[in-house]
Amino acid sequence: MTMPFRPPVSPEQVARFVAIVGESHAVTDPAEQAAYLEEPRGLYRGRTPAVLRPGTVDEVAAIMALATELGVPVVPQGGNTGLVGGQIPQSGEILVSTKRLDRIREIDPASSTMTVEAGVVLQAAQAAAAGVDRLFPLSLGAEGSCTIGGNLSSNAGGTAALAYGVARDLVLGLEVVLPDGRVWHGLNKLKKDNTGYDLRHLFMGAEGTLGVITAAVLKLFPAPRSIETAFLGLASPEAALALLGLVQERAGGSVTSFELLARICLDMALRHGTGLRDPLAGQHPWYVLIELSSGAREGLRDLLEETLALGIEQGLIVDAVMAESLEHRNAFWRMREFVSDAQRYEGGSIKQDVSVPVAAVPDFIHAASAAVTALIPGCRPVPFGHLGDGNIHFNVSQPVGADKAAFLARWDEISNAVFAEVLSRGGSISAEHGIGVMKRDYLPRIKDPVAMALMRSIKATLDPKGILNPGKVV
Amino acid sequence: MTMPFRPPVSPEQVARFVAIVGESHAVTDPAEQAAYLEEPRGLYRGRTPAVLRPGTVDEVAAIMALATELGVPVVPQGGNTGLVGGQIPQSGEILVSTKRLDRIREIDPASSTMTVEAGVVLQAAQAAAAGVDRLFPLSLGAEGSCTIGGNLSSNAGGTAALAYGVARDLVLGLEVVLPDGRVWHGLNKLKKDNTGYDLRHLFMGAEGTLGVITAAVLKLFPAPRSIETAFLGLASPEAALALLGLVQERAGGSVTSFELLARICLDMALRHGTGLRDPLAGQHPWYVLIELSSGAREGLRDLLEETLALGIEQGLIVDAVMAESLEHRNAFWRMREFVSDAQRYEGGSIKQDVSVPVAAVPDFIHAASAAVTALIPGCRPVPFGHLGDGNIHFNVSQPVGADKAAFLARWDEISNAVFAEVLSRGGSISAEHGIGVMKRDYLPRIKDPVAMALMRSIKATLDPKGILNPGKVV
Repeated sequence: MTMPFRPPVSPEQVARFVAIVGESHAVTDPAEQAAYLEEPRGLYRGRTPAVLRPGTVDEVAAIMALATELGVPVVPQGGNTGLVGGQIPQSGEILVSTKRLDRIREIDPASSTMTVEAGVVLQAAQAAAAGVDRLFPLSLGAEGSCTIGGNLSSNAGGTAALAYGVARDLVLGLEVVLPDGRVWHGLNKLKKDNTGYDLRHLFMGAEGTLGVITAAVLKLFPAPRSIETAFLGLASPEAALALLGLVQERAGGSVTSFELLARICLDMALRHGTGLRDPLAGQHPWYVLIELSSGAREGLRDLLEETLALGIEQGLIVDAVMAESLEHRNAFWRMREFVSDAQRYEGGSIKQDVSVPVAAVPDFIHAASAAVTALIPGCRPVPFGHLGDGNIHFNVSQPVGADKAAFLARWDEISNAVFAEVLSRGGSISAEHGIGVMKRDYLPRIKDPVAMALMRSIKATLDPKGILNPGKVV
Repeated sequence: MTMPFRPPVSPEQVARFVAIVGESHAVTDPAEQAAYLEEPRGLYRGRTPAVLRPGTVDEVAAIMALATELGVPVVPQGGNTGLVGGQIPQSGEILVSTKRLDRIREIDPASSTMTVEAGVVLQAAQAAAAGVDRLFPLSLGAEGSCTIGGNLSSNAGGTAALAYGVARDLVLGLEVVLPDGRVWHGLNKLKKDNTGYDLRHLFMGAEGTLGVITAAVLKLFPAPRSIETAFLGLASPEAALALLGLVQERAGGSVTSFELLARICLDMALRHGTGLRDPLAGQHPWYVLIELSSGAREGLRDLLEETLALGIEQGLIVDAVMAESLEHRNAFWRMREFVSDAQRYEGGSIKQDVSVPVAAVPDFIHAASAAVTALIPGCRPVPFGHLGDGNIHFNVSQPVGADKAAFLARWDEISNAVFAEVLSRGGSISAEHGIGVMKRDYLPRIKDPVAMALMRSIKATLDPKGILNPGKVV
């Protein structure tokens, strides 16, 4: 999409925006803006005449109404943890941070719902649910700083999606400010509502290009009474896939996580993490971190033990250890969560967040590994992820001792090789992270042209002036 | 919405449509069209110059392209079981029946997916899943004749939504013919795909007004290894709500159904059904039909027994009987499924399919019952439904011996009284059945005006000529 030329926002215009939130809630000093303009991996850096921190939905509406009046573009931002640049003002747009929209408006345990504003940090939402003996299951690495608004706008996935679904599956209602400042009041708490088109799913996953989500009604679940976790050594991804089938057949809906890791993930984590230890005595080419949870207090450990015994009997599991304590369980998860960070200490890494049909995961891993090592001999594929969702973080670390910059310069080449293996299996080039800026130009090449045309006409309908998060997604 | 005047479709135009599918797959004789033009309750009767029965997506695309070229309106139809008139050509539109699109294109048990065409009957889809030891959980009264395309277009609910979600939650990918004949090929099998706007949810629940769904990738689940069912007598809806909380806390995700019935539902069913018997020795003002299912072969009966014992101990359950056999279980469900039909033998009935937040159900039932009996003394509220979803079929039967036509003449009055109680609790006037023609004119009165405006602009964007299922929903 060609970006229309826009003159820079004038100081008078900036002043009008600042007046909406008040000077104490606007950041115009570039030195103080850094936290909003640099994203976690340092791949994108932005600039803005003003970071606005509205405290109410009415202020967000006023900002968008003014933006429409003036034709000034706006980028919404939550916790600034996105990995594809969607939250960064690339071209001097006004930045609207939702972080002050941080109220939990209502918790209704009897209806199993919670109404929260967009700026509530995911961990705070989890804690609020736990406070009424309920579970809000969305869980991901950045949960200490990412916000609900960002989670929904990017349709976050995470480690519990296998049992509870992705972010969009956890939402009953939304409140959204449209590009022209109108507010859609859709905060309903209903599990069933067939009164017209489903507008929620239009805004979720749209990465802030169609509207600014300001609040949401989230689904809550019964707090689990028992959790059992095990770390398993396996010979191959094929064994892991067969084991997934076995486990789902035996334990059904209680399987909340089924994470696959190649040995190299553990090697890197052990090399650079503190307080991590190899979970099993021997080394294995592949590992599965499995977690079951249940509303019943008893019986889950027996179920996991029996299932693992069957997996060993069928030759799918080579070695297994079950968590004997909460501390033991946490150690398993620290290992899993540190894999992505650990790669930083191994030089350059080219990261892909892709998905394929679950049954195609083993074949995809082999083919993609072969493809990237053919391109760059010695490069190190570091595949791990959520096998139950067909979602693999197919990361590639540079060859040991190679030049980092030279390796990273081949980002597109490596990406294309991985994407080719993804697409030939009917997969997705962005399973969890979204499109943002990073994959925007890829999108028209891989997406069904009718889908692309529909997306563009929806964008043009909802945001005819193209002022909301321009240059992202479409 | 004002309907534009359209001249009747000319014989030459009809001939062009018929040529697309071939004469043997077109029904132009009015005598043979009856099965397509009358809906189950006889509330809506349509007319059409031709029923077209395309056998491929290409034929559907050709029909829509021609419809766009000629400006001729088209109504898509599945199994013709809809309850709000959405599938009936009210103004002489061309009718496109999807019933010949009845192939199961693929079953992939390892990925837990199944790709089916729109005309596949729900029961056939369930059977195909069972054939590979999987569960397709959507289940509703009309499953022997309704089709997957209709289920998705109307976002069907049914009795398993508590555990597995409504129809839209069971879909990974779609193939859709747009009003202008373009085909969106979105049949992906991915559990996670964040590449742009979610188009699936735009077409699901849109009742065929935005596109014709021709095929879908459905999610499959592990087939349950054990199912336990019980029929419970209770004193009040409040007790049922408290019991729901207890059961969800103890049995979590294994609670697949939690159906509430007033005693009058059983009275009517027993009076008019054959082979039904009162499930409990005494009579109780309220009943719950509860079902648990699990991937584990053992332990579920103990879990249900313990939970019910706790419910009795806490004074929530007055009497309970657990199904001792499959036949016993089926008898419970026959009772539940016959409630709606039984009302036919009790004179006129005014039926509402509404939802409120789960916690508001008891209060809603009391208030709505009081409201309708104040309007028509002696009328008989027959409330039943899916308590776990907050979804109550708030039906009202005429007073004994009253004049049926005079009672039915007060449909709007009764509806408005019920809707007022629904809306004051943040509820929905159509939980499962949709808007169709029946509730179209209500919609602008109860829907958020911004939502209404968004729906209209989406309709105008996707169907600028207004030729697809005109006069429905918006």
